[in-house]
Amino acid sequence: MSEANKGYFTEENSAEVVVSRIADTTEPRLAEIVGAVTRHLHAAVKEIEPTQEEWLAAVMFLTETGHTCDDWRQEFILLSDVFGVSMLVDAINNRKPSGASESTVLGPFHVPDVPELEMGSNICLDGKGHPMLIKGRILNTDGEPLSGVKIDVWQTNDDGFYDVQQKGIQPDFNLRGVFRTGDDGVYTFWGAKPRFYPIPDDGPVGKLLASLGRHPFRPAHLHYILEAEGYETLITHIFDPDDDYIHSDAVFGVKESLLAKFDLIEDPERIAKEHPDGPFYEVVNDFVLAPKT
Amino acid sequence: MSEANKGYFTEENSAEVVVSRIADTTEPRLAEIVGAVTRHLHAAVKEIEPTQEEWLAAVMFLTETGHTCDDWRQEFILLSDVFGVSMLVDAINNRKPSGASESTVLGPFHVPDVPELEMGSNICLDGKGHPMLIKGRILNTDGEPLSGVKIDVWQTNDDGFYDVQQKGIQPDFNLRGVFRTGDDGVYTFWGAKPRFYPIPDDGPVGKLLASLGRHPFRPAHLHYILEAEGYETLITHIFDPDDDYIHSDAVFGVKESLLAKFDLIEDPERIAKEHPDGPFYEVVNDFVLAPKT
Repeated sequence: MSEANKGYFTEENSAEVVVSRIADTTEPRLAEIVGAVTRHLHAAVKEIEPTQEEWLAAVMFLTETGHTCDDWRQEFILLSDVFGVSMLVDAINNRKPSGASESTVLGPFHVPDVPELEMGSNICLDGKGHPMLIKGRILNTDGEPLSGVKIDVWQTNDDGFYDVQQKGIQPDFNLRGVFRTGDDGVYTFWGAKPRFYPIPDDGPVGKLLASLGRHPFRPAHLHYILEAEGYETLITHIFDPDDDYIHSDAVFGVKESLLAKFDLIEDPERIAKEHPDGPFYEVVNDFVLAPKT
Repeated sequence: MSEANKGYFTEENSAEVVVSRIADTTEPRLAEIVGAVTRHLHAAVKEIEPTQEEWLAAVMFLTETGHTCDDWRQEFILLSDVFGVSMLVDAINNRKPSGASESTVLGPFHVPDVPELEMGSNICLDGKGHPMLIKGRILNTDGEPLSGVKIDVWQTNDDGFYDVQQKGIQPDFNLRGVFRTGDDGVYTFWGAKPRFYPIPDDGPVGKLLASLGRHPFRPAHLHYILEAEGYETLITHIFDPDDDYIHSDAVFGVKESLLAKFDLIEDPERIAKEHPDGPFYEVVNDFVLAPKT
């Protein structure tokens, strides 16, 4: 045990005294994490100099956040999201080599075991919203097309809801699909133009956002998980750059490289050939996978 | 809005982007607190570089801590206590002029409206434990005795429990009392030698302490609140310097100036005069109050 362990707590040496209590037998990674949390926490308190009332308000905020968590709602993840911590952890764990597509947060709406579909299928099962053609290629960092890539996609409908949020209103697996690339690395499917949507804002995190003058919205996007043997799995979104909230995603998920163009196709020739019902949106976006390290 | 508000989140600028979203209309103190929390939180994450699993473990720890809180148990205050944050907030809010007695944490066992007793009374209502005489003077920083000081004291019994933890076992108001000084500034009362005790360690905070190789004990102490017109209210303890846990209080409440001597009096003359039943402990401790600022 260090000498500081014999010393009493003072305002000046506060963090050192607390850290010195961690026993030498502690699992090293836990000791490292708790040590860093303690030092940064004390630095924050020393900068803020909270009154006793402000300290108690923080305790009550955390308590209310905990009480809001249940099997369906994870308010601490939401708190991590709106403070940019989830995105920071994602960024730290997904540093990509130059040229590879960037990641963003998974979010809470992924569903496992979605049926695999033929390339070119329509994942909008209820035919609602604005039809949208989504296509592109999956490449490696040398620009070569990748075959056998599993593409798992999901998105909101035109009202900004995922199927799992509207059971009985949307068909099961609506606007979800799994596809697999052939030798050309091409993917293509039909969906519906997604819409912005709010994160759950009826709890303590939503109240905090409101007191900070922040809105709860995420700009319209499509989710992807791309898996291929020998490559890092890529969890990402592509975003509509024309969305009103594109510069203020409530969870900081937007990266410049994830902006895709959502084009309205009004060319009669293309309509006649590809979507005789009328105009449609189109997103063309390639993804580049990083080799497994 | 600042220019950064238009910028997208990156690993490098993460905290700045999050802070830039705080609206100009936000109450300035809230903006200051949230800004500082965000910057220190991101600095901690960048130093720790948590894996996704470690991040989720932190989320689950906070969730469990929240779920442990109810009307009787405040696990987030306990978390603040064992990380030294409660003591740091106390220290920041109670910087005393030279010569004045130092403060320490209030703790959860204070009871309001305890009956006022005659100076010299015995607050140990069940006669259990080792009798202890507690006395001293209340002074100002010029060394002058203060009259009319309200002295609110409470302590554990010989088993390390407060009355409110043992309803039906200890009498109501056992080992609690309120006294008021006369012109000589002297206080004196009988109690019982207090014992060390554990903070509640059957929840997530206790589990964390165990994984850090830390024990849950607080060294034996007496609690005081001293109130006098024209002076800063003093919330403090005095500690038994011979307690096994005096150098490792689980909540970091010990300060060097709060050590008092718990003397065993075996002198037959004093026993005959002051406590004919036999030997007793004695603590003599003066308190110095700081003038109201």
